[in-house]
Amino acid sequence: MQTIIPVILSGGSGTRLWPMSRPDCPKQFLALTGDKTMFQLTALRTADPERFAPPIIVANARHADMLKAQLADIGVAPGPVILEPCARNTAPAIALAALEAGTSPMLVMPSDHVITDESAFAAAVAAALPLAEAGWLVTFGITPTGAETGYGYIRIGQSVGTGVHQVEAFIEKPDAEKAKAMLAQGGHVWNGGIFLFRADVLRDAMAAHAPTMLDCAKQAMDEAQRVDGLIKPDPDRFAACPADSIDYAIMEKASQVAVVPVAMGWSDVGSWDALYDIASPDSAGNSVSGDAVLIGVTNSLVRSDGIRISASGVDDLIIIASGQDVMIVRRGQSQAVKTLAEARTKQG
Amino acid sequence: MQTIIPVILSGGSGTRLWPMSRPDCPKQFLALTGDKTMFQLTALRTADPERFAPPIIVANARHADMLKAQLADIGVAPGPVILEPCARNTAPAIALAALEAGTSPMLVMPSDHVITDESAFAAAVAAALPLAEAGWLVTFGITPTGAETGYGYIRIGQSVGTGVHQVEAFIEKPDAEKAKAMLAQGGHVWNGGIFLFRADVLRDAMAAHAPTMLDCAKQAMDEAQRVDGLIKPDPDRFAACPADSIDYAIMEKASQVAVVPVAMGWSDVGSWDALYDIASPDSAGNSVSGDAVLIGVTNSLVRSDGIRISASGVDDLIIIASGQDVMIVRRGQSQAVKTLAEARTKQG
Repeated sequence: MQTIIPVILSGGSGTRLWPMSRPDCPKQFLALTGDKTMFQLTALRTADPERFAPPIIVANARHADMLKAQLADIGVAPGPVILEPCARNTAPAIALAALEAGTSPMLVMPSDHVITDESAFAAAVAAALPLAEAGWLVTFGITPTGAETGYGYIRIGQSVGTGVHQVEAFIEKPDAEKAKAMLAQGGHVWNGGIFLFRADVLRDAMAAHAPTMLDCAKQAMDEAQRVDGLIKPDPDRFAACPADSIDYAIMEKASQVAVVPVAMGWSDVGSWDALYDIASPDSAGNSVSGDAVLIGVTNSLVRSDGIRISASGVDDLIIIASGQDVMIVRRGQSQAVKTLAEARTKQG
Repeated sequence: MQTIIPVILSGGSGTRLWPMSRPDCPKQFLALTGDKTMFQLTALRTADPERFAPPIIVANARHADMLKAQLADIGVAPGPVILEPCARNTAPAIALAALEAGTSPMLVMPSDHVITDESAFAAAVAAALPLAEAGWLVTFGITPTGAETGYGYIRIGQSVGTGVHQVEAFIEKPDAEKAKAMLAQGGHVWNGGIFLFRADVLRDAMAAHAPTMLDCAKQAMDEAQRVDGLIKPDPDRFAACPADSIDYAIMEKASQVAVVPVAMGWSDVGSWDALYDIASPDSAGNSVSGDAVLIGVTNSLVRSDGIRISASGVDDLIIIASGQDVMIVRRGQSQAVKTLAEARTKQG
């Protein structure tokens, strides 16, 4: 079995977990689910040297110090750390990594997802590897737990190996009715943005379907600054890359695209409600982290990185304190966070 | 008409408006109802030099700098500022002031009450003055606006002057049933802790009914340090004063005790709910002060002295941010504040 190179994508800077998640510290660098950050959990997930090489990390240049410190904290020595000079979506980020990975299988993972069933994940990767080695682009399909409208879906086609199927179709984020129909019908999984393919196979697919992107990425890497294990692609060359997702740019267009359906306790922690859903609440139904005194409070998510929260007699709230900000919304309404964050950003 | 000496009592250190009200800054020193603090509003209420002498202020020694700064801020030059070395309730505090006031009428006022109808208050004082000059101890009785159980009541007796009545009885804080009965019956007012009497009359009454208290107060003032307009009574002498309220120690025992019933928009702002009740809410029913972004929030009280509050989709909440504390309770349940403050104090 060939050693897999993990590729950890840390480009996101989402505001859906504001006020904790901020551009200078997006959610992958926060310890939201325990004592480790999701970036650290992602790195530890592929830390077994028998199976994995040191990870290639593709990250926003402003997070270089933080990610190095977080890796040192868990004793993971990274492979190449590629610092994106700007954000061009996932396809160019993966292209940069593929140009460093020779012909090895690359396991591409977002750094801000939670996977609670690590052995299910490991089994899925093991199932995918023979196909990847044989030249397939393999994606992992999350067994749906509800009629979510926030994810793309994959329709599962015929079997091409043990636990592996051809992709029959990629389906964009559906409306509620369509999501319900797919859930009822079965044979559909969520597109979780996790992939396994050989680096050279990905480069070939990109040469066929997104040649400009590959050329720009190549030039950016040819002219990169390399210092202390950090790779800084040329900013102008990289900025010239068309911004696109790997799904649109490659996966939907390539042949030999496979999916491994897997139920592994996955969450993209895309909202405070999502975090509550994967938390282990106490007997009052509260999930609490940080300095909080709660009396007669139920079914609430409470987080603080410093501010002292004291609450009494309230229910079903999301109370998040970070820095000098406190945010309060009703549980089930955490989509309102975006509006609040935007209002605050406008204020400066 | 004789010039009245206002006596402003600033000894309270209540925690019912925690986390804003704290021992080092109790609620009279907070601008809770507008741009002036309740201490400043109390001083301004008796700032007319035609009718009032400079005020005697009796305060906790730790607040000396704050009260001087707050008076300077509104251009009020105080008379004697008496700094209590410890808290002995209202009767000893008033005794200290009476020992500085010769034979003048003293208008004793708590510094942490709100009075919105200043002209009604002025008229009540004018009505009380002839009786006070004639040797009566006059109290002001607040026309009740509900069957409150948090206040003492006064039963109004026969008329002894225009707008002035004998006190028939002082009634301790009633239970709900008794409060309702008094409200239905009429002829009862709340004891607001505001008094008008000649200093020498008060001293004589105290000599008769609380002689030890008067002696201790006298000795404390005889041995006081007097520096820069500040009077620091001798700590040991003052500590020897029996602690008691002016109601128990004097008013309930003396003869010639009168009451002026008055409706003057009074509130003791004894809770966050009480503050909401006297606030002028916006069209959404919110009363907001400080840095708050509210979207779809209704009927809520929001205060911050620094922390940035962002809330969406919540109703009927009290959200108070002060220093590094945030407190969240339901409106109508602000009695829970005491429990939260105690829990925090225990933590240290």
